[in-house]
Amino acid sequence: KKINSKASQLTVLDMEKDEESTFDYDKLIIATGARAIVPPIEGINLEGVVTLRSISELDRFTSAIDSIKPKNAVIVGAGYIGLELAEAFHILNISTTIVEKFERILPRFDPEMAELVHNHLIENNIELILGDGIVSINGADKATSVVTESGRIIDADIVVIAIGVKPNIELAKDCGIEIGKTGAIAVNTKMETNFKNIYAAGDCCETIDRVTGETTWIPLGDIANLQGRVAGDNAAGGNAEFPGAFGTSVFKSFELNVAMTGLSETAAVKAGLSPISVSMTKGDRARYYPGGKELNIKLIANKNDGRLLGAQIVGPGVSDKMIDIAATALLGKLTCQDMENADLAYSPPFSPVLSPMIVAAGALSSRLKK
Amino acid sequence: KKINSKASQLTVLDMEKDEESTFDYDKLIIATGARAIVPPIEGINLEGVVTLRSISELDRFTSAIDSIKPKNAVIVGAGYIGLELAEAFHILNISTTIVEKFERILPRFDPEMAELVHNHLIENNIELILGDGIVSINGADKATSVVTESGRIIDADIVVIAIGVKPNIELAKDCGIEIGKTGAIAVNTKMETNFKNIYAAGDCCETIDRVTGETTWIPLGDIANLQGRVAGDNAAGGNAEFPGAFGTSVFKSFELNVAMTGLSETAAVKAGLSPISVSMTKGDRARYYPGGKELNIKLIANKNDGRLLGAQIVGPGVSDKMIDIAATALLGKLTCQDMENADLAYSPPFSPVLSPMIVAAGALSSRLKK
Repeated sequence: KKINSKASQLTVLDMEKDEESTFDYDKLIIATGARAIVPPIEGINLEGVVTLRSISELDRFTSAIDSIKPKNAVIVGAGYIGLELAEAFHILNISTTIVEKFERILPRFDPEMAELVHNHLIENNIELILGDGIVSINGADKATSVVTESGRIIDADIVVIAIGVKPNIELAKDCGIEIGKTGAIAVNTKMETNFKNIYAAGDCCETIDRVTGETTWIPLGDIANLQGRVAGDNAAGGNAEFPGAFGTSVFKSFELNVAMTGLSETAAVKAGLSPISVSMTKGDRARYYPGGKELNIKLIANKNDGRLLGAQIVGPGVSDKMIDIAATALLGKLTCQDMENADLAYSPPFSPVLSPMIVAAGALSSRLKK
Repeated sequence: KKINSKASQLTVLDMEKDEESTFDYDKLIIATGARAIVPPIEGINLEGVVTLRSISELDRFTSAIDSIKPKNAVIVGAGYIGLELAEAFHILNISTTIVEKFERILPRFDPEMAELVHNHLIENNIELILGDGIVSINGADKATSVVTESGRIIDADIVVIAIGVKPNIELAKDCGIEIGKTGAIAVNTKMETNFKNIYAAGDCCETIDRVTGETTWIPLGDIANLQGRVAGDNAAGGNAEFPGAFGTSVFKSFELNVAMTGLSETAAVKAGLSPISVSMTKGDRARYYPGGKELNIKLIANKNDGRLLGAQIVGPGVSDKMIDIAATALLGKLTCQDMENADLAYSPPFSPVLSPMIVAAGALSSRLKK
């Protein structure tokens, strides 16, 4: 509820008992996380309108599914959560529409890679309404339909608001702790805030984009976990650093495994870099070995020196493996020329003789020579 | 058949027609590969005694299986080929014994990691006879049994000699091309031999161990492929380099995926380094997500600076993914401290929140601090 940094005291409000308690601290770690963004629109409090972030929200969500037995779902937002939910609804035989204010899904991906996922959603009977936000939700006490900016009315007995999250910074802000330009708590690589003995970690605080060196905000579970470890280590007298992240992520959308790390080509241009890229489709096993699957790979490098900037992988194959190779290459500041001669593990059940990542790096490297 | 390097001529013998032809060359690439080592023991030419390296050997092998319909197999040698074959024989319901002259299987792995595979073979009813070579093969025209150094006689109607390969260097040697201390053709990073305009690539030539910087010989298909590309590029006027390899490899043994890269702890000590290591067993997915499998990881780093030296992974889980992360980390000369904060892709179908590779690196890093 309140931090008194001068007295090194934290005041906590027990919501159930409505009682305040005050604790002395030597070191304080703020790990308040983030919460789902909920737009203040008409009908937002109707039964059947849910968010999906905390465990209590999950409980509310599953009860809603159980009691409503929905036939039509609208998912607002075409990010990771929205797309994963679309698959879950499809499995439950719920007719599903995704409404997204942006013109396309997966804005962190380059358009042609996002399009592969887009088309796959359509093939799986997910309706996509893009470039259109929701303005209100109809219903007496239960949601019955959603109204969009363009005036479309879409039947929906369950509406999931998945338009993103925002950091829980109120506690820090009230105490005067510096909030960064991303809107999350500013920290250094030791996870220290600008207040002595106060750390922050997780989705409530910023981090460094290790490709651009810029401050950014990446609310992902694994990064939160790493940051928490560093903050805890330092609060306990250690000397750990969290050097930042590449925003590496992966998710499953029906038969596709969708992964990215680092900058998209779009993001690289926006960051003032001169990227070049290659895209290709490759199998993830030796051709003659059963069970191999396809991968669409996009690999992006700096035109000047070949340094890898990012990768995107979409396909039924082992996107997670490929993206972890790419993320490790980014960590090592490797170039496409380096990766062209990477020594990755080959045998037919596991890989083609040259990993798709090596082939893509080789193609990039050839383009640089021209 | 013969290289006349002064005249830039190559003489080829057509074995079928028994005719010699001579070709002029501007650039010559020697890609003569390697062949299976065949010990000159009694009975080696009996029917049912086979090697498994070339396509013609494969044809001979499959015909032998078809005509003999073997009940008992002896595999001589407990390397990758021998172990992969044991599984194939098991599937064909052939009772299988592996005879290996060394005291243990998989000498490139550390003993405790090799032991996991050893135990798994036993569980799958493969008999292992270690520290015992074969001295002769009994039989009139068909093999019937194998005799070992210790005097054991093992019934065998098929005997596979899989004790290793040696480089085909005769053509190069006859012409006076330098043979390295490993016994394979010496080349520089451009894949040039010591003779002008003559290159070598693949299993017939040496390479650099990128951890130790020493010259080594790694007859693996993916390395041969990479070397061939570099030799071809340079022979065609390009300027490519093959910087060496880590000996990254993976194979499947029944339910285990077995992978390694870089130096084992044993090899690191032998190379005069001071390694430290951690070993752990981890799941390859979030605990609550179905289908996750276990991995046994061993990660080895330099005690002085934490630089990663090698990794070994054995388990039913995604060993191939983990080893490719490790191999890329070696390529980037990364330390365990670097890898402790790697940004690898997390979501429950693909990984625990922290990749086993991050957890292992973190454990190594903690040990270094002590």
